[in-house]
Amino acid sequence: MDVHPDVERTAESIATMETRGAAAIADAAAAALATQAREGEAADPAEFRAGMRAAARRLRETRPTAVSLPNALRYVLRGMQGEDVTTLRDSVVDCAETFRYDLDRAQDRLGRIGAGRLRDGDVVMTHCHSTDALACVEAAVEQGKHVEAYVKETRPRQQGHITAKELREMGVPVTLVVDNAAHRYLDECDHVLVGADSIAADGSVINKIGTAGLAVSARDRGVPIVVAAGTIKIHPDTLTGAAVEIEHRDEAEVIDDETRAELGDVDVLNPAFDVTPPRHIDAIVTERGQFPPESIVTLMRELFGDAVEAPWQEPGDGVP
Amino acid sequence: MDVHPDVERTAESIATMETRGAAAIADAAAAALATQAREGEAADPAEFRAGMRAAARRLRETRPTAVSLPNALRYVLRGMQGEDVTTLRDSVVDCAETFRYDLDRAQDRLGRIGAGRLRDGDVVMTHCHSTDALACVEAAVEQGKHVEAYVKETRPRQQGHITAKELREMGVPVTLVVDNAAHRYLDECDHVLVGADSIAADGSVINKIGTAGLAVSARDRGVPIVVAAGTIKIHPDTLTGAAVEIEHRDEAEVIDDETRAELGDVDVLNPAFDVTPPRHIDAIVTERGQFPPESIVTLMRELFGDAVEAPWQEPGDGVP
Amino acid sequence: MDVHPDVERTAESIATMETRGAAAIADAAAAALATQAREGEAADPAEFRAGMRAAARRLRETRPTAVSLPNALRYVLRGMQGEDVTTLRDSVVDCAETFRYDLDRAQDRLGRIGAGRLRDGDVVMTHCHSTDALACVEAAVEQGKHVEAYVKETRPRQQGHITAKELREMGVPVTLVVDNAAHRYLDECDHVLVGADSIAADGSVINKIGTAGLAVSARDRGVPIVVAAGTIKIHPDTLTGAAVEIEHRDEAEVIDDETRAELGDVDVLNPAFDVTPPRHIDAIVTERGQFPPESIVTLMRELFGDAVEAPWQEPGDGVP
Amino acid sequence: MDVHPDVERTAESIATMETRGAAAIADAAAAALATQAREGEAADPAEFRAGMRAAARRLRETRPTAVSLPNALRYVLRGMQGEDVTTLRDSVVDCAETFRYDLDRAQDRLGRIGAGRLRDGDVVMTHCHSTDALACVEAAVEQGKHVEAYVKETRPRQQGHITAKELREMGVPVTLVVDNAAHRYLDECDHVLVGADSIAADGSVINKIGTAGLAVSARDRGVPIVVAAGTIKIHPDTLTGAAVEIEHRDEAEVIDDETRAELGDVDVLNPAFDVTPPRHIDAIVTERGQFPPESIVTLMRELFGDAVEAPWQEPGDGVP
Amino acid sequence: MDVHPDVERTAESIATMETRGAAAIADAAAAALATQAREGEAADPAEFRAGMRAAARRLRETRPTAVSLPNALRYVLRGMQGEDVTTLRDSVVDCAETFRYDLDRAQDRLGRIGAGRLRDGDVVMTHCHSTDALACVEAAVEQGKHVEAYVKETRPRQQGHITAKELREMGVPVTLVVDNAAHRYLDECDHVLVGADSIAADGSVINKIGTAGLAVSARDRGVPIVVAAGTIKIHPDTLTGAAVEIEHRDEAEVIDDETRAELGDVDVLNPAFDVTPPRHIDAIVTERGQFPPESIVTLMRELFGDAVEAPWQEPGDGVP
Amino acid sequence: MDVHPDVERTAESIATMETRGAAAIADAAAAALATQAREGEAADPAEFRAGMRAAARRLRETRPTAVSLPNALRYVLRGMQGEDVTTLRDSVVDCAETFRYDLDRAQDRLGRIGAGRLRDGDVVMTHCHSTDALACVEAAVEQGKHVEAYVKETRPRQQGHITAKELREMGVPVTLVVDNAAHRYLDECDHVLVGADSIAADGSVINKIGTAGLAVSARDRGVPIVVAAGTIKIHPDTLTGAAVEIEHRDEAEVIDDETRAELGDVDVLNPAFDVTPPRHIDAIVTERGQFPPESIVTLMRELFGDAVEAPWQEPGDGVP
Repeated sequence: MDVHPDVERTAESIATMETRGAAAIADAAAAALATQAREGEAADPAEFRAGMRAAARRLRETRPTAVSLPNALRYVLRGMQGEDVTTLRDSVVDCAETFRYDLDRAQDRLGRIGAGRLRDGDVVMTHCHSTDALACVEAAVEQGKHVEAYVKETRPRQQGHITAKELREMGVPVTLVVDNAAHRYLDECDHVLVGADSIAADGSVINKIGTAGLAVSARDRGVPIVVAAGTIKIHPDTLTGAAVEIEHRDEAEVIDDETRAELGDVDVLNPAFDVTPPRHIDAIVTERGQFPPESIVTLMRELFGDAVEAPWQEPGDGVP
Repeated sequence: MDVHPDVERTAESIATMETRGAAAIADAAAAALATQAREGEAADPAEFRAGMRAAARRLRETRPTAVSLPNALRYVLRGMQGEDVTTLRDSVVDCAETFRYDLDRAQDRLGRIGAGRLRDGDVVMTHCHSTDALACVEAAVEQGKHVEAYVKETRPRQQGHITAKELREMGVPVTLVVDNAAHRYLDECDHVLVGADSIAADGSVINKIGTAGLAVSARDRGVPIVVAAGTIKIHPDTLTGAAVEIEHRDEAEVIDDETRAELGDVDVLNPAFDVTPPRHIDAIVTERGQFPPESIVTLMRELFGDAVEAPWQEPGDGVP
Repeated sequence: MDVHPDVERTAESIATMETRGAAAIADAAAAALATQAREGEAADPAEFRAGMRAAARRLRETRPTAVSLPNALRYVLRGMQGEDVTTLRDSVVDCAETFRYDLDRAQDRLGRIGAGRLRDGDVVMTHCHSTDALACVEAAVEQGKHVEAYVKETRPRQQGHITAKELREMGVPVTLVVDNAAHRYLDECDHVLVGADSIAADGSVINKIGTAGLAVSARDRGVPIVVAAGTIKIHPDTLTGAAVEIEHRDEAEVIDDETRAELGDVDVLNPAFDVTPPRHIDAIVTERGQFPPESIVTLMRELFGDAVEAPWQEPGDGVP
Repeated sequence: MDVHPDVERTAESIATMETRGAAAIADAAAAALATQAREGEAADPAEFRAGMRAAARRLRETRPTAVSLPNALRYVLRGMQGEDVTTLRDSVVDCAETFRYDLDRAQDRLGRIGAGRLRDGDVVMTHCHSTDALACVEAAVEQGKHVEAYVKETRPRQQGHITAKELREMGVPVTLVVDNAAHRYLDECDHVLVGADSIAADGSVINKIGTAGLAVSARDRGVPIVVAAGTIKIHPDTLTGAAVEIEHRDEAEVIDDETRAELGDVDVLNPAFDVTPPRHIDAIVTERGQFPPESIVTLMRELFGDAVEAPWQEPGDGVP
Repeated sequence: MDVHPDVERTAESIATMETRGAAAIADAAAAALATQAREGEAADPAEFRAGMRAAARRLRETRPTAVSLPNALRYVLRGMQGEDVTTLRDSVVDCAETFRYDLDRAQDRLGRIGAGRLRDGDVVMTHCHSTDALACVEAAVEQGKHVEAYVKETRPRQQGHITAKELREMGVPVTLVVDNAAHRYLDECDHVLVGADSIAADGSVINKIGTAGLAVSARDRGVPIVVAAGTIKIHPDTLTGAAVEIEHRDEAEVIDDETRAELGDVDVLNPAFDVTPPRHIDAIVTERGQFPPESIVTLMRELFGDAVEAPWQEPGDGVP
Repeated sequence: MDVHPDVERTAESIATMETRGAAAIADAAAAALATQAREGEAADPAEFRAGMRAAARRLRETRPTAVSLPNALRYVLRGMQGEDVTTLRDSVVDCAETFRYDLDRAQDRLGRIGAGRLRDGDVVMTHCHSTDALACVEAAVEQGKHVEAYVKETRPRQQGHITAKELREMGVPVTLVVDNAAHRYLDECDHVLVGADSIAADGSVINKIGTAGLAVSARDRGVPIVVAAGTIKIHPDTLTGAAVEIEHRDEAEVIDDETRAELGDVDVLNPAFDVTPPRHIDAIVTERGQFPPESIVTLMRELFGDAVEAPWQEPGDGVP
């Protein structure tokens, strides 16, 4: 069974970043696998399985560092069950449908779950811009709770401005502060509420640079820290030791040309993310429920398999 | 004894901010008191003392929240000793001279003292721009030590750029990072080295917003935090409970007009300073030596008196 | 299939608090579901399932805040499996029997498991009165270990007196202290041993007011804190964000009429419980084994299902 | 020079507890020393000094565990200076007057100093009943600040009721809670504000049982803890290693006769005080200013001498 | 079905310590169970099961405190499934083969997983000698990473010498220090990397004496601590409260005869292991992936069953 | 005034280590200064002062890293007061006598002060061998208290053996453990009691390698840590930033020749001391009383002067 042309097209679209965003990529990949299953020709179960794995590998290689992409592949391939081609096909299609259906509703569910932590009158502090985190506030507001927010501007890219604007659109009173002022205003806050770029097997949360320090400050001030992140952000490769690569971005985000000229041979480092250890996080809110960070690995294995071997690998011994 | 015209002129110059900067103000105030002592006419010791107190009050009222100003006044008036006008006069003039002489050399001494903490090859992290902190690095470099620096940009006013530039001029390799990245790079650092706006009797350090959070991060990462601050930054009024007023600055430092227009009715808070408790600080380096923050109060009382009554107050019972 | 009259009677008995106590309520609810399954008439599987859900909802609504009640319902309904009415019926009856059988023996098992943590000669500190916690001590005593106890009186209702009496009946030497003295005597103790009112998905333990502060003191003094609580205390609704309501009780438990008259318009707050975060707890001892608090959520999902939808809900999307 | 009959009478009055309360005892002792100095007959300086020491020893032995008593004696005897009897006499009388004058105004000064820490709108939590702590709140209220209070009832003797009543008389809104509820409500509080029974040379604060645990909770919750205590509470004997004896009070304060009968051979321990280490305290407010607890020893030595030898000892080498 | 003579021989060999080492014992026990299944005669499923349980008990009783032995037995017996003897037999044999196959490759997998945590240029600190920990370093070196090591000598038996030698053989630069120097050099290290003797259900790690203190130091210095341990080290009996016995070894390991003679009646205690609580550990690396210590209990139950009843017990109620 | 031949002889004796030990060196240096004052010829006060400074410099240069030597010099030279040679001479001689007299009795006083912290029945843990620490235990035993001890062997030089022996001679029951076992047995201990090599201005304690880690463990286990050290150990040069040099000793203390041969090119580091920050120490017991470590700097300045300029320097501006 060859890789279906639709899989190729999807792979292309992901590789060129035409398809972008964690959810969109995962959705497209699951859809492509369903097409491969439905339309690919296979003489026997072995050929069918090999074809599915090949399709998954093709998709995977487009964005080696994305998290949601392999999660979609893992989820769907793990559901591939059966002794004949028809059963295998149906199982893959079903599984892809379920994945896409759940994905579509995940943020809404997650928001309603996270809203349970917010009480009427609570004040949250946010960092960066996270639709998952905002979904929790929005659901709380829809439940009639009054919520206020301290919004960190989140240098270097000031995504706090987007957060501030969206919170205002929900009717949430917003106080914008520079990142340096966060520690000072934590005493006014009942929760720190952030999103995640990915979540590792050891319970660490990789999120926008500045999260790790904010979490330490929150512990010092006795404020609980909640991470809102759909299960699509869970990073199963970390189970087998894969290191999370931290992207370093252009220095132009940090200093403009004029400053650069003035400063001379000063180095500028601009990492996009940092790593917050689980002991500094109180709960991770997903669409499957809220979990202590230390137990996310259990959900990870349940959803995406044991990961000692990725399901798209040819059978063998390899730690991916 | 009337307030001398020179005192009036100095007061005016301080009030209009023609004379500015902690050291310049203190120097001018001490010089004015010396003039008052030298040239003011007084029939008897009581009149002399009353005149000195009046001059001090006149100077004090120009900038009620400055720290170095009352310190200069306290230091000089505490030295006013004697039973006759001549002795009193000489004691004040001597004391003002000593104060000005010490003040002139304080940063240099402080730098040499602080340099003792830096070893060859050490890496420091800085916050904001502090000439006292930089004096320590400079002295270490002059002693032949190789020192490197991570420089936080220090939003909202990015004084880190000035720090970076001055460190480069000393030959110190500099890595500039946004404030959010500080926690991540603390593992590369051997010291956090900052200045102070003022130091309170309970050992707290008031410094540029962001210091308190950085200190918490430093404790978490096992990095010692050193505050470099001349004794002129000690705030004796706090001994008797005076609260340190935290200046709130214009929101334009945080958001530009375009963002303001876009964000609508978002509040912006822009405090200039925060308060770091003594348990998060390892040492305060002054020109008189390095002290644990908890013992600064002893130096405070030694230099500036018990402060239950300010020396420019008419005798009475009042906590200032 | 209608709701069986026995279910109605049980519901009534629970609602009027004729049936009370976590275990008794759970047992009655499981028995009622078994009756519904055994004796309810159903034309087809769909009707059978609908009837079971209706019965469960009827029981559930009697005490919306009880924890053991929905746990019994969840446990039994999750076992409802089959494609025809007979199989469904048998599965429900079997499951209800298993639940009731396990429930009957849970405290005894839990006690033997918890006793493993106590060594000969150990001293425990207790808070409030917990039959689960006492079962651990009792089992240890039956194993021939000498155990002593510091018993906090546990204001406002002084349930420590009951604990003290029951420990004496086991032959355990008891020292009774006021709650304020607990911190001081922790240095004499090898364990803090308490029960739980309920356990949340994020690993928090809701227990008698005073537990959270005791746990912080125990961490400060290096004393491990163990929570003994049967799985019936696990609160699966918290997985999907349900907040644990903290009961506020009558002020008469705190001040008598005379004091009330004397104090005038003083407010009195009398919360029954507080919340201890998982990082302040060393282990939770259940009849299924001892677990770190962070992994209770895994046991919760295993026993009571994923809880994104309660099993008594009509199929739909709702987070309960 | 014999011990003056007035000294005897004062000693008697203190011993029989006719004269009681830390301030009253200290005042009486200082007055008695002044009388001894003024009216005792002495042939030469040596006899005068010996007489003063004898008087001091007589007073001291009446209440060996009181703190304010030896402080009064130390303070006055340290001021005994001179080469002839007249000068010695005058110095003692002056010093006793100063001590009594300062003592009379200490609480008022202390209150004004402590009020500086309270901002308009702040909420304090209190433990036990301390006139020093209440003086701080009262001064803040007089300065026009709105202050609210959570008052712990403070078992076993419920001195919180007195505190609640006095705060209400100042117009402070009060919420009374049992001691077990303190941890829960710390998140609503800006300060913990307590008094002290005594303060040791190592910076520890001895105060009503329950203070040490409250301080640990306050650190966990990020709430600063302030101790208000006049310098008369400083315990100079601890400088040379004297242990602070913790009074154990009658069990009848903890359980009534009926409970005692019911509980059988249960031990009851009822310590009056506990010890809070300096690292859990943010500041100690005295009438001489506010100090970090670690620097109280400096004030102690300044006010009461080096204490290696008590001034009422005959010259020798003994650590008292 | 009787216990097969091969099982007897294996039991004998384990009891006499002819077969020794965690892996060798586990392998032999699994092989013996396979023989029992393959060659034992059984008239019906009940007899087969009883025979397997008897064989397991026979093996178990040889070394009651070993951890890997009961793990092998649990793993194999849990796989015993089927309604007829043939199916049962095949299931046991299959399961034993799988166990042995996985065991054989476990350390290699674990090493590759753990190597993911090590970056090029990292420095690790080791304690004692652990082949699991060294496997992680070796795999990292094979991946081309430069790794350096601080090796604690690990009194009393100085297994650090073995570690140092093996690391040198891998080409890893080694600095050997006494245990007392570990705290000082943690600032130079990026990881603490140790093995485990066993891992308890509450997430505690039992390892060579000195691990618990090292972990506390590592937290203080902000260095993550990683435990490398195959799943064979997991101790399922602790789930049901079994205490981990700490072996006390001969004092001759601590003092030689001469010192013993000189010291007279000094006691010497020489415990082989200590217990590190999960909150001081960042991750446990197994051949199944890396886990937060708090979630090991989930892996434990998955691999070895719920352990409320050991699979070799006759059906009943007993907590083993 | 030339340097007196006796000063030369003393300097020689110190330089050749004929005179050794902190106290012996200090005593010899003070005696030499007294001789210089008494017998040196000086035409005028300036010459006298210059001679004294020259003598001090001669003595100082013999052992640049010793602490007690410059302390003796500072103490004596600070007492040099007067306007004529006779007065100057007398003041120096008096001051040297006082210093030597106090030094002679310091350990005995210190022991009695420290004994106050030990209660009947207490258990202490010791590290290395400190006569100051043992003096505290001995005084407690002489007061009739029963004290027991856990003695760490203190690799590499096992000075714990000496400590164990001396404690046995006092009748103290001793348990000897390897350093790795200290953490485990801290739960049995009421105090950690150690000496100091020197104490820095920032409150840090420099003591035998292993102290810093033990202090961290003690904090984790809730055990107070007490440092017993005469004021001669205070290191005034650190006030002006002098770094404390940590001696590195021969690797032969760590490994014997055979191990060295076997290990090949393994580095061995053998630092003699480490640095414990003040926040990990509860009290420092000196012969002048017990102090929080943060206030030692005050005692330092009182005894040894402000140290911005050493008293043996020619007048100038130099930070030594």
